[in-house]
Amino acid sequence: MIDGITRPTLLLDLAKVNSNIEFMLEKAKLTNTMLVPHFKTHQSKEIGEIFREKGIDAAAVSSVEMAEYFVKHGWKDITVAFPFNRLEIQVINSFLTNGVKVKLLATDLDTITFLNQELVETLDIFIEIDAGYGRSGVHAKNTPLVKEMVTAIEQSDKMNLYGLYCHCGDTYHANDTREIEKIWENAMKELAQIKAQIEPTNRPLKIRMGDTPGCSMVQHMEPIDEIGPGNFVFYDLVMNYLNVCKEEDIAVAVACPVIAKYPERNEVLIHGGAVHFSKDHLFDATGQKFFGEMVVFEDNQWSSIIEGAKLTSISQEHGILTVTNELMQVLKIGDVIGILPIHSCLTANLMKSYQTTQGDEIAHMSLGVK
Amino acid sequence: MIDGITRPTLLLDLAKVNSNIEFMLEKAKLTNTMLVPHFKTHQSKEIGEIFREKGIDAAAVSSVEMAEYFVKHGWKDITVAFPFNRLEIQVINSFLTNGVKVKLLATDLDTITFLNQELVETLDIFIEIDAGYGRSGVHAKNTPLVKEMVTAIEQSDKMNLYGLYCHCGDTYHANDTREIEKIWENAMKELAQIKAQIEPTNRPLKIRMGDTPGCSMVQHMEPIDEIGPGNFVFYDLVMNYLNVCKEEDIAVAVACPVIAKYPERNEVLIHGGAVHFSKDHLFDATGQKFFGEMVVFEDNQWSSIIEGAKLTSISQEHGILTVTNELMQVLKIGDVIGILPIHSCLTANLMKSYQTTQGDEIAHMSLGVK
Repeated sequence: MIDGITRPTLLLDLAKVNSNIEFMLEKAKLTNTMLVPHFKTHQSKEIGEIFREKGIDAAAVSSVEMAEYFVKHGWKDITVAFPFNRLEIQVINSFLTNGVKVKLLATDLDTITFLNQELVETLDIFIEIDAGYGRSGVHAKNTPLVKEMVTAIEQSDKMNLYGLYCHCGDTYHANDTREIEKIWENAMKELAQIKAQIEPTNRPLKIRMGDTPGCSMVQHMEPIDEIGPGNFVFYDLVMNYLNVCKEEDIAVAVACPVIAKYPERNEVLIHGGAVHFSKDHLFDATGQKFFGEMVVFEDNQWSSIIEGAKLTSISQEHGILTVTNELMQVLKIGDVIGILPIHSCLTANLMKSYQTTQGDEIAHMSLGVK
Repeated sequence: MIDGITRPTLLLDLAKVNSNIEFMLEKAKLTNTMLVPHFKTHQSKEIGEIFREKGIDAAAVSSVEMAEYFVKHGWKDITVAFPFNRLEIQVINSFLTNGVKVKLLATDLDTITFLNQELVETLDIFIEIDAGYGRSGVHAKNTPLVKEMVTAIEQSDKMNLYGLYCHCGDTYHANDTREIEKIWENAMKELAQIKAQIEPTNRPLKIRMGDTPGCSMVQHMEPIDEIGPGNFVFYDLVMNYLNVCKEEDIAVAVACPVIAKYPERNEVLIHGGAVHFSKDHLFDATGQKFFGEMVVFEDNQWSSIIEGAKLTSISQEHGILTVTNELMQVLKIGDVIGILPIHSCLTANLMKSYQTTQGDEIAHMSLGVK
């Protein structure tokens, strides 16, 4: 698997990808929801195909550029899960005239007015609700604004009100599973209340919730119709530290050459830095900041996390692994070790392509939409 | 300049690039050193050409992949300013057989032995010295190891000992100019001492020092022969907060659409997040973490930093600008504002291409070596 690897290379275990997708499909079944996966984590046409083979034909993306990529690769039902950017109206209209079903997120009245004037065909609208995360969306308590938006959408023949969209990103910062559940319980209550006040009599509205921690951990999702997680396809150390996934669920690892050893400071230099992992980090039990954990390769897989080794410092291309005396003796210059990423979405975005554990090359859209 | 911009776009002010390069050329002249610029910040063949037009024909890069890119674009004298990775020996040999002068950094004896066995032609070697930064290189006090390496290099007909290389990356974390100078004074003393002990009688060794803060601020560089800064070509907010550059020297800004306004929390949502800026950050005087500062565009340039606006939170594509009441009134959904990056190297690496303030497209190697 690592034969021939001479540079930082993003390895992908498709068996884990498959099992992570199966887990989430099962979760959707158990909770009577529909899985509309977010593709921002993998950004890959091939991984999109894996979802399609499992019966998924609607997905979400985080930018119009990403929508262009997946439309080019045959996706016909795409939610741009980012508040609509009116400067992108021409691309949205071109999707519509080409038969792509685009769902947009609106978060203010003015955008509804703009869309009513500028859309060339009818599309579905989510009103994005902020249930406490505080990033984007209409605040859940601002029912008057939601009602005004509903009225404006209903009066337009360019928009159908599809439902309410909510991303509880605060679950990523929860301390434990119970806190994730509480964040969701609160959000579900808020969304159900809003829905009850605005739902037209002739057509049910959908509620979609998005984050991977919640979708992975919450068991009861009564008011929810659709789940839209993204990170679960790979998971990562953030999810593992939050007990949202097991470490063996993490489907990506960066293969990094060992460059130099510094026994006097228990450090090993690897080729693997901020242009490979991003600067996202976690803190261990002693308060030490770290940027990844080490695995080793054998046959066509990687090991569980090696205790006593953490990526404690990174600059543009340099990574410093702090290791025990035992590992210092075992690791050799010229070895290729693996680093499990803190945040798989940003790592994949930086690495720009995948090599499967079977040796196949897989695309990431970062090398261009075309 | 921003007409037609609908998505996050990395704008480049070539007049500032030119003036930053002229400043560093003048600095080299005043300090009797040679500028061998590091290209890891811009990673652009066109910006390489600007250096070439000013008489520069040797450069440094931070990876062999980056060396491949610049070799492809006509560079014949390249330092791979990262401890040599033996897994890349074939690429290095192909450079040599194609007439490219490659300089490598060695940091241990075993690598010297490896190079002696594997190199197909002779090349120049720097011994990298760690003068206190603690990232890579032979520790400055480890004279016995340096001497052993010198002996091994001198005994090989595949390597010429070119000199000592030192990157004082700790200057990036200095509190003021005096601290930058002190870091350099210490490093220069260490390097001069080592050089005195190892210099052959028949040929002078070169000392190259690398970091932008030091190269920008230090006035007396007696033992130094070559300076190899990279970041100075663009500078950024880290350099500005360290008083290493003026804010008007910062040559890149990310143009970002304004997506939504949240007056109740004094926040504005922009399209511009961790996939555009990286997660590097600074802290303002009140201890508030931030990921960029705002400028506005007029004619073919951007303004000075707008007080009362900071990019206080980012996720993958979302950026949250915290703004004053006055700015909340002035900013409109659909505007395009500029964000000066915290760390221009990582921002350019993520953005993958430049648009000059004159409207021209400029390449970044991230879209592939070919």
